[in-house]
Amino acid sequence: MPPPPTIAQQLAAKQRDISIAEFFERNRQILGFDNPQRALLTTVKEAVDNSIDAAEEARVLPDLLVEVAKETDERLRVAVTDNGPGILRREIPNVFARLLYGSRFHSNRQARGQQGIGISAAVLYANLTTARPARITSKVEEEEAAHVLELVLDTQKNQPRVVSEDVVLWDRPHGTRVELVLKARYTRGRQSPLDYVRSTAIVNPHCRIVLVEPDGTRTTFERATTDLPPLAKETLPHPFGLELGELGYLLKGTRRPTVAEFLAKDLQGVSARSAKELLAAAKIPASEPPAKIQAERQERLLDSLRAASLLAPSSDCLSPIGSLLIKRGLRNVLGELRPEFFAPPVSRPPKVRGGFPFMVEVGVVYGGGLPADQAIQILRFANRVPLLFQQGACAITNAVGNLDWRRYGLEQKGGSGVPIGPALLLVHVASTKIPFTSEAKEAIAEDPELDKELTLALQAAARHLRTHLSRKSRREFASEKFAIIQKILPKLAEKTSQLVGKPPPDLTPVITRIMDVVNVDAPVVRAPERVTLPVEVTNYTPRPRVLELFAELPPEVLAVATFAPAPDGTEPELGRAWWTLPKLAPNGRTKLEVSLPPKTDVEANDVDWYVAGVDESHLLGADPLPGDWDVRLPRTIVEAAEAAAQDAAAAGAADEEVDYDAAEASASSRDDE
Amino acid sequence: MPPPPTIAQQLAAKQRDISIAEFFERNRQILGFDNPQRALLTTVKEAVDNSIDAAEEARVLPDLLVEVAKETDERLRVAVTDNGPGILRREIPNVFARLLYGSRFHSNRQARGQQGIGISAAVLYANLTTARPARITSKVEEEEAAHVLELVLDTQKNQPRVVSEDVVLWDRPHGTRVELVLKARYTRGRQSPLDYVRSTAIVNPHCRIVLVEPDGTRTTFERATTDLPPLAKETLPHPFGLELGELGYLLKGTRRPTVAEFLAKDLQGVSARSAKELLAAAKIPASEPPAKIQAERQERLLDSLRAASLLAPSSDCLSPIGSLLIKRGLRNVLGELRPEFFAPPVSRPPKVRGGFPFMVEVGVVYGGGLPADQAIQILRFANRVPLLFQQGACAITNAVGNLDWRRYGLEQKGGSGVPIGPALLLVHVASTKIPFTSEAKEAIAEDPELDKELTLALQAAARHLRTHLSRKSRREFASEKFAIIQKILPKLAEKTSQLVGKPPPDLTPVITRIMDVVNVDAPVVRAPERVTLPVEVTNYTPRPRVLELFAELPPEVLAVATFAPAPDGTEPELGRAWWTLPKLAPNGRTKLEVSLPPKTDVEANDVDWYVAGVDESHLLGADPLPGDWDVRLPRTIVEAAEAAAQDAAAAGAADEEVDYDAAEASASSRDDE
Repeated sequence: MPPPPTIAQQLAAKQRDISIAEFFERNRQILGFDNPQRALLTTVKEAVDNSIDAAEEARVLPDLLVEVAKETDERLRVAVTDNGPGILRREIPNVFARLLYGSRFHSNRQARGQQGIGISAAVLYANLTTARPARITSKVEEEEAAHVLELVLDTQKNQPRVVSEDVVLWDRPHGTRVELVLKARYTRGRQSPLDYVRSTAIVNPHCRIVLVEPDGTRTTFERATTDLPPLAKETLPHPFGLELGELGYLLKGTRRPTVAEFLAKDLQGVSARSAKELLAAAKIPASEPPAKIQAERQERLLDSLRAASLLAPSSDCLSPIGSLLIKRGLRNVLGELRPEFFAPPVSRPPKVRGGFPFMVEVGVVYGGGLPADQAIQILRFANRVPLLFQQGACAITNAVGNLDWRRYGLEQKGGSGVPIGPALLLVHVASTKIPFTSEAKEAIAEDPELDKELTLALQAAARHLRTHLSRKSRREFASEKFAIIQKILPKLAEKTSQLVGKPPPDLTPVITRIMDVVNVDAPVVRAPERVTLPVEVTNYTPRPRVLELFAELPPEVLAVATFAPAPDGTEPELGRAWWTLPKLAPNGRTKLEVSLPPKTDVEANDVDWYVAGVDESHLLGADPLPGDWDVRLPRTIVEAAEAAAQDAAAAGAADEEVDYDAAEASASSRDDE
Repeated sequence: MPPPPTIAQQLAAKQRDISIAEFFERNRQILGFDNPQRALLTTVKEAVDNSIDAAEEARVLPDLLVEVAKETDERLRVAVTDNGPGILRREIPNVFARLLYGSRFHSNRQARGQQGIGISAAVLYANLTTARPARITSKVEEEEAAHVLELVLDTQKNQPRVVSEDVVLWDRPHGTRVELVLKARYTRGRQSPLDYVRSTAIVNPHCRIVLVEPDGTRTTFERATTDLPPLAKETLPHPFGLELGELGYLLKGTRRPTVAEFLAKDLQGVSARSAKELLAAAKIPASEPPAKIQAERQERLLDSLRAASLLAPSSDCLSPIGSLLIKRGLRNVLGELRPEFFAPPVSRPPKVRGGFPFMVEVGVVYGGGLPADQAIQILRFANRVPLLFQQGACAITNAVGNLDWRRYGLEQKGGSGVPIGPALLLVHVASTKIPFTSEAKEAIAEDPELDKELTLALQAAARHLRTHLSRKSRREFASEKFAIIQKILPKLAEKTSQLVGKPPPDLTPVITRIMDVVNVDAPVVRAPERVTLPVEVTNYTPRPRVLELFAELPPEVLAVATFAPAPDGTEPELGRAWWTLPKLAPNGRTKLEVSLPPKTDVEANDVDWYVAGVDESHLLGADPLPGDWDVRLPRTIVEAAEAAAQDAAAAGAADEEVDYDAAEASASSRDDE
């Protein structure tokens, strides 16, 4: 009889492999399937993200149909149909019913899906909760018919099993349809499929998405642009942030014959010349085969790479939304709230963490119908995908909470935490690798590099907000003063002149001296036959003014607008138009008019007016021209600015900053009063 | 020439398997390795948890040495040595350098590690950041020598690779040592190795852990008990919360010949009789082979299982800490803060979620050196493992924040969020499957069942706190009254008697009538030769009292105590002693004394005094005997209570609650005043 097994033998006998599918089956909360509401949202999200990714890769404008229907009290049927390129028959089982299988994990490029987990996890959850297979229909352009497969995921093997298969005719050239029956609960409001689709539409204005809810409600998000975002390119790893072990893998895996070629061709940012230099610094022969670089020589090579001044990482593997589309997306979705202020969105330049490039974009909206007594709303996005859960665990929320928003005009208890006020923040992180806190991809993990960029972007956005708020209070103050002066001074003059028996004097010099502003008044006037924006610019300053006026409208509004007089120039895609105004004497006024077809959906808030030729402190009802507009200033103003600079230099005041207003004042100082 | 590949073909060509190790290498934040500080903590945690699990399984009192030493500026060497059973040579590579390989995943039993990921992830991270192999030394009792292996994890295959191997003599009968060199940063304070080891010691008082920090500081956490917690048993899945798909897997995988046997023997809580009944309800023959139950019959079977009244889940697969050890652990670690109040810890009965049993334990500490103006501290534990990161994303924190603590005497802005005050909460969730939010096991995911139990446990603990706080304010009020009466009344009586020329009256009836409390005074007196606790019990009530006095001391203090007079009984393990006091007339007083050796580390706060025979509202300086003490009351009091109940019934006041105080009053009503 053999001796009884020892403790160590007993323990050893229990050691087993764990299939990744078994692991996730037991830990389904990690994948975002821990309750029926979240399971529904995760399923919709994975299917929608895959569909948009596929259509974009095939350079097709995404057109999605998302249907959620009730099967029984606790079961829903989710079907997502796209116009993507379709999937070859042989790939369908693995793509939909095998975890950790996909096309995007090994490519160094921004994409929504990357892990090869999402949609197979939804299939696994559906199998598990309703014992129903997933039904996939897919047609590629080169075949006549579509394949229809019913699939389950064998968790013990993490392998797909085809339950049934058919070939059908499908009335579309190409596309894919995923149908799942799962234990789920339909909700509206926050964290609902509607919320998800709406948020997706904000940052993906090139997509058309139709959502059909269980009660039959059909909501269509039309695309706001027909321009596909440029396809993010695949890039090589960048040496910044590369770990020793990773360098080892790369050296071992490369096919380049020499280490010099490996550095210059397999890494980003290393030129042939800098490769030679840094190999010399590391005392490694340039002709050495990469696989022979081991141990300490790897360390020396990495040290040299870190010390070298390399080219910055390329950003063409990223697909930022861009300021223009952030603003347009926000306007599109928040239009009904009529916010008083859309800050110019902030797009930070790309940075690198752990060899992967990333960038941060931030938009801020303020006022209007946004609730003033609640925590501000934070719309979080990662690679154009909305993040709806785990806000508290997200690096974005953390960066927002660590900023002292009281300095920027919002309320905040103790100077930390999510601030209170009628504001909304949109934060987008784009990267070839987003560090999510879990496979459910609902929150971004803390990272010092990322946190720094988030903070800088949020600070820039917050400064815009502070400028707006201080400008607003200054305007309110100026408006009051204006109203009082306009009323009281003429009456005072009238009374006084009656008393002394003289005709009332010309008040212009007095009023302009007290007011000292250029006022822009631009209401929206609706009439049955048309909508007009009559614009009045009045020079309430004591000097003559040569001004340029700039308008920024939603591009679709500009497209149907007519102007009197005609603008000096327009930029239709950006929705911009500009005029050089006739020289305005003190108290002088000029008018122009924008005419739109009847019922054009436009509000005064939708049009931004900018003025060049007068500085911010002397401007009311418009903003100074932002520095990033690429528009030539009229020669008169430029010349005046140069003359003023020369004058100032001559007067020994060369250390003062030159601004156009000072220049203008100098240029016109002789015809003053 | 073949035609160029179509889009679908191009995409298909990119589809690839992703190795789980590659996946985690790129997503190391999911495993808890996203920055050098967290990487260190995760490494220490995984090694310590494995060591304690292994020792417990072998029924050995865990004895751990945790060494952290500096290698270079950004590299640390971590070594954890245990006295566990050791690991067989053939299992070492897989256990330490292969993800998703382990002995505990498939067992339905509470353990610290379950996933077969943790320590291999640490090895992967070490390989990646320093290119250094892990060094494992392990000796099993039945072999003479220890095996030493150097290992790396091949990420593309998720397989271990043995770099070197040796056999050495080791001066211990059995055990394992893990040594890793990794990119890491050493910190002290919160989220440090010291913090982790200290928190581990709180809830694992049977462990001895020595920590050596990089500067050589050596901290020893001695074990507070030599009782190993009972080994949690493996159990069968319970039908409550079983999903359809899971039932399908079980039916397919069982070896039982009939479905009736399957139900009764492969599931927990189903008796042979209820199996027959519910099969009849589902219209399935009891003799049907399990694998033949498919589709709709599976659904009917699951419906019957859900509707059946089954036995509650067994809790012997769980290893709760228990009230006594929670209190002892907290005292042990928080002793220096001298909190004024340790609430009796709350242990909820086990419940089931998704077929897995779980239970919640909560301890509350209040006052002393805990900061009064900060958010309360929450010590979170899952299966006796401290959770140090991701507090904001954890179901425990969420449950704490959702309770309105203002009702329980703590400050809380708006009635939600972590409350403010000098309190500390210990919350332990024990389960055969903890739903962590990610593989790093730092936060517990939201779950309605779990949330309910957490809330109930927190409410119970909070009620203890409220009772303490209101008792405290009542005592303060009574003490003031007491001081005034003791001073003023005698003076008043003296003056008055002088005026009327009579001797001062006996004030006892008046004072006791106004005071109406039993006062317990028990200071700690330190002298060079010994420490004493002189106890004075005074009956400031207008009736004679028969009282029992109970003391609860730290067991190690009780072990060295001598009493005068000797107690009627003691319970050494629980640190309890009790006395029946001589009958006390109004204003009567009795004394007893506890003597301890010189320098015994004990404070007045470390001893709790309880009194039976008088109700809470007439008790000062002690608490009423808690209901859960299993002590027989002296006969006099029991008889008096029964007599009082009979009297009350006779007087038609039978609907009033009987309490010992009322009983006592009734029993002694004739010799009153």
